[in-house]
Parts: sequence; structure tokens; C-alpha cells
Amino acid sequence: MEKFELTILGCGSALPTTRHFATSQVINIREKLYMIDCGEGAQLQMRRSRLKFSRLNHVFISHLHGDHCFGLIGLISTFGLLGRTAPLYVHAPAAFGPILQSLLGFFCKGLDFRVEFYPVDTSRHALIHEDRSVSIYSIPLRHRIECCGFLFQEKATLPHIRRDMIDFYRIPICEINNIKNGMDWTTEDGTLVPNHRLTEPSDPPRSFAYCSDTCYLPELTQYIRKADLLFHEATFLHEDLARAQETFHTTARQAATLARDSQVKKLCIGHFSARYEDESLLLKEAQSIFEPTILAKENLLIKI
Amino acid sequence: MEKFELTILGCGSALPTTRHFATSQVINIREKLYMIDCGEGAQLQMRRSRLKFSRLNHVFISHLHGDHCFGLIGLISTFGLLGRTAPLYVHAPAAFGPILQSLLGFFCKGLDFRVEFYPVDTSRHALIHEDRSVSIYSIPLRHRIECCGFLFQEKATLPHIRRDMIDFYRIPICEINNIKNGMDWTTEDGTLVPNHRLTEPSDPPRSFAYCSDTCYLPELTQYIRKADLLFHEATFLHEDLARAQETFHTTARQAATLARDSQVKKLCIGHFSARYEDESLLLKEAQSIFEPTILAKENLLIKI
Repeated sequence: MEKFELTILGCGSALPTTRHFATSQVINIREKLYMIDCGEGAQLQMRRSRLKFSRLNHVFISHLHGDHCFGLIGLISTFGLLGRTAPLYVHAPAAFGPILQSLLGFFCKGLDFRVEFYPVDTSRHALIHEDRSVSIYSIPLRHRIECCGFLFQEKATLPHIRRDMIDFYRIPICEINNIKNGMDWTTEDGTLVPNHRLTEPSDPPRSFAYCSDTCYLPELTQYIRKADLLFHEATFLHEDLARAQETFHTTARQAATLARDSQVKKLCIGHFSARYEDESLLLKEAQSIFEPTILAKENLLIKI
Repeated sequence: MEKFELTILGCGSALPTTRHFATSQVINIREKLYMIDCGEGAQLQMRRSRLKFSRLNHVFISHLHGDHCFGLIGLISTFGLLGRTAPLYVHAPAAFGPILQSLLGFFCKGLDFRVEFYPVDTSRHALIHEDRSVSIYSIPLRHRIECCGFLFQEKATLPHIRRDMIDFYRIPICEINNIKNGMDWTTEDGTLVPNHRLTEPSDPPRSFAYCSDTCYLPELTQYIRKADLLFHEATFLHEDLARAQETFHTTARQAATLARDSQVKKLCIGHFSARYEDESLLLKEAQSIFEPTILAKENLLIKI
């Protein structure tokens, strides 16, 4: 299977603790890196996770609270020092454009690469980026300020060649790419061998959904149904529901309920409030509703 | 002796490594905290060093390279979330004022405390702040952009009371403060006991000098002579002198030479280039010139 991995760089919430960095994650799809949120320390954490700066071309910012974006200027600044030349694409709520521009103008004069800003309409579910490997959609969330999640939908890979059939019909190597791309084969005696006899279907495309920060939104099911992995914030225990509602955050039980109702394969919870010394309580609460839940943790790598 | 301590929060240079945070330090004088530089992650490192946010009222920024100031907006933002009400005083090169203002306007609306900005003239040696415990002076440095160091000069404490003499003359407790402040004592029979017989001189005031980032400047001796502790950058080994000169940084040998020539009591070197995996080489080089040298390290506490 082609690589599709999530690395957690930070999974704390707004207040710093000795346990967590601020929010940031990196998706690795076929050795291309996509960053989601960029809290303070994200660049340091990329180093610690041995993720190559040069493979990162896209950064997606969910919302403009500092614990989700204060690390970006440092990351860009470092790219400049390292002599980067490839453009960096920043996708974020529109209001981030001017402030990013003024930071760049002040701290990053003379960069050898462009920082291209793409405003994201956080109120809609829409395609915001695609390339050969992946389509990335926004997921409208509800928080104290405008905010969206992101859905990473892997693109189908080409079917697998059936080695035995290639040998049997003595099909030359140079034709294999055509067959992968759907061509039938005609033997020397004129017999047509249909493509499906020469190939096996590729692995089904996988998906990853990121939902943070948000209050509990049961309607997210429509966007994240059957995702292979859902990362959802679980800032609070359900006993602190009032506080969760007040601050537009989600409890562990609510995150697990959404995961169950959306029939996702696996749930990873994070964005832990500084108030919980023992985060296993959050895990237990979520697992009581949806067993395949794990706790986010700095530098954790999850294969999707 | 009254408390006078330095805590290193980060001692790396501009490029992130797995070993170091960006530059930041905290001076604790009699339980008041003063931050020098505020690289990314400074707030996290304050937590790890168990330094109380509420005791920090002054931040001094040496220069406006990102690795010395990108952590400030996150720190201020956290102070806001924690309900701080006391003003925070930021001392930095004048150009920082407007950019800090625009970051505050965007990310920290409705703070319950004032952030007061004091421009520092980095070209002069001048008093930039004083209170009951300390006088803080700028030290003009030479770097690629305008930059200054800081000299923390402890104020003299009151003399120690000689308990035996107080008992001997049966001086009432309520007079002790007056005597500490220099008053003589007259006995019932009219004999004058001069103050110096009732007290012992206080501990000599201590000083700490911070010099980073800068090329080697032998003339700094005039500002830092006989300091109890000198923190000086030693970004490079002397074998990389050409690179040090090109980038306006100092080698370990140069930092140690300055320490020796200034007759400081102790030297702490830091701001290590990412190129050296083994920093003990920097230490050895410095110690060959000035023996009482130590290496900075994250969360290291040095009593002055």
C-alpha cells in the first residue's frame, strides 16, 4: 500500500503545559507532506519526528486562534534560512492573509520562495486542493471564531498487475503501464484478453478527517462517514460538558459518539485541556462509546 | 543572600534542532522575573522550568531575528487566557512596536492588561529600566541587524543587623528597620552608638551580562568588567571563524577571551549553531582560554 500516515506534532490546547505542544499535525501521502495547523513549536516537532521540511508544500490552518497558527512564521523563516525555492501554499481563513503578509514583510525579507495564500471559506464543504495523490476538502465546524476541519481523500491508485497473467501471455514490460491504465491485450492469434483478467483492483482509497476546534456537531457524519481515521478534538471530559459548550469544544464522549455514528474505522482524540493531568480518563470515556479510539501524543505516527 | 538566578529556556540558534529551543532566558531577582529574548517555545519552557507567569513583568528583546522574538505573541496570548491584569513591559528595538501592535490587535483582542512598549536604543549603553532590586542597562552589540545586550546590576541590599549588639543595647524590634537604613542609636544614658557598630555590610551587589547575538567585540570589557556571570553567544568553533565573521557571530574561543579580559567570574556560552552535534567541543575550546566556563542547556538554573 502507498504511504498514508499521520504524525501528531502537538495535541495540547491553548494553555501551555509540560506535557504537550500546541496543535499541529502532518499527513504524509506518498512522501508528500501536508501540515494541518501550525501551533508554536511545530518546526521543532517536525525535526523531532524526522519529517523533511523540503517535502512540505501545503499548510492548512483551521482557525486563527494562536495555538493553531503561531508556529507558521517561524517555520517559514526557517525555510528561508535553509534556502528553500519551492513555493509554500498556505490555506487559511481569509483574515489571515494580511497579517501573514505583514509578518513576512517584516521578518522574512528576501525569501527565495513564494508564500502563496489561499483563503478558505470555512462555512462550506468544498474542495480546497487536489493533486495526483489526494483531494482535500473543508469541513465546516462551529467554534468561537470561524473554523473548519479538513478531509483528506486519497485518490485511487492504479490496479495491481497480475504477474502470472503477464507471464502467461508473454506481455512485454513496455506494455505494463498501458495495462495498468486499463488497456486490454490482444494475443498474436487475435484473441482479446480483457483488462480485468490481467489486473487486480487496487487498494480502496483511504480517507482521514480532522475536526478541531469545534463543539459537538452530529451533522458532521455526512462529511466523514466511513473515514479510515478521524481526528477529533476532545478538549473536555463529559462531566465538564457545560464548560465545553460555553467554549465551543467537544467532550470525549461526544467525539466518540460522532465516530460511532459516522462508522469511521478509528478515532484519535486530542486538543486536551490543560486541566487533565491524567488523560487516560478521556480515553476511557471515549472507548466506552467507541472502542477503536486512541489518544493523540506528541510525535505519534499513525498509519492510515 | 537574596535570590539572583538565571534560567536558560532555550540556547539554540536560528535553525531548529532536536537538541535546543530558540533563545530565551529568565532572570529571577528576589522573586521578580525578567525575560531576555523570547524565541518560539519560551512559554512552554517557562512551564517546564516551573517559573510563574504572574511574576514576569518585563521582557527584553535583543534584536528582531525570529529566533529571539517569535515566542512573544504566544506568551502574551497565554497571559490573556489566564486572566492577567498587571501590565507587561516590552523593551525592544523601536521597529518592533508597530508589528507587535498589529499582532496584538489581531490575536489578542480584549486583553485585561496593557502591553507597554519601550523602544530601546541599541546603539548606546544606557539605563533602560530600574526598580528597587535592579538596574538594567543596554550593551551595544554588532550583528547583521541592530542589536543590544543587557546588563543586570543588582542594587545593594540593606546591611545585616548584628543581633548581639541589638541584644546588648536592648534596642526594641520596632527600631531595627531604622537601624538597617542607617540610623545610629542613643542609649538611655545618652551615649551615641554609631550605626557601623550595630550592622555588618550587606553582600556586594552582583551583576549579570547577556551578550547575544554579536560578533566578537573586545570593547565590551568596559561594560561587563567583573560581572558575576557573563552569558555570551558562541555560535561557532574557532575553526569556523570565517563563517562567524560573515554572519556577525562569535566563536567559543573569542567569547572566552572576552570573559578572561573582562575578569568576569563565570562564563556561560550558548546560541549554538545547529552544525555541532557535540557541543563539548565548544566547551573545551572556551575552557582552554577561560576555565570557569559552562555550556548553556535547556532548563539549566544558574545561581549568580
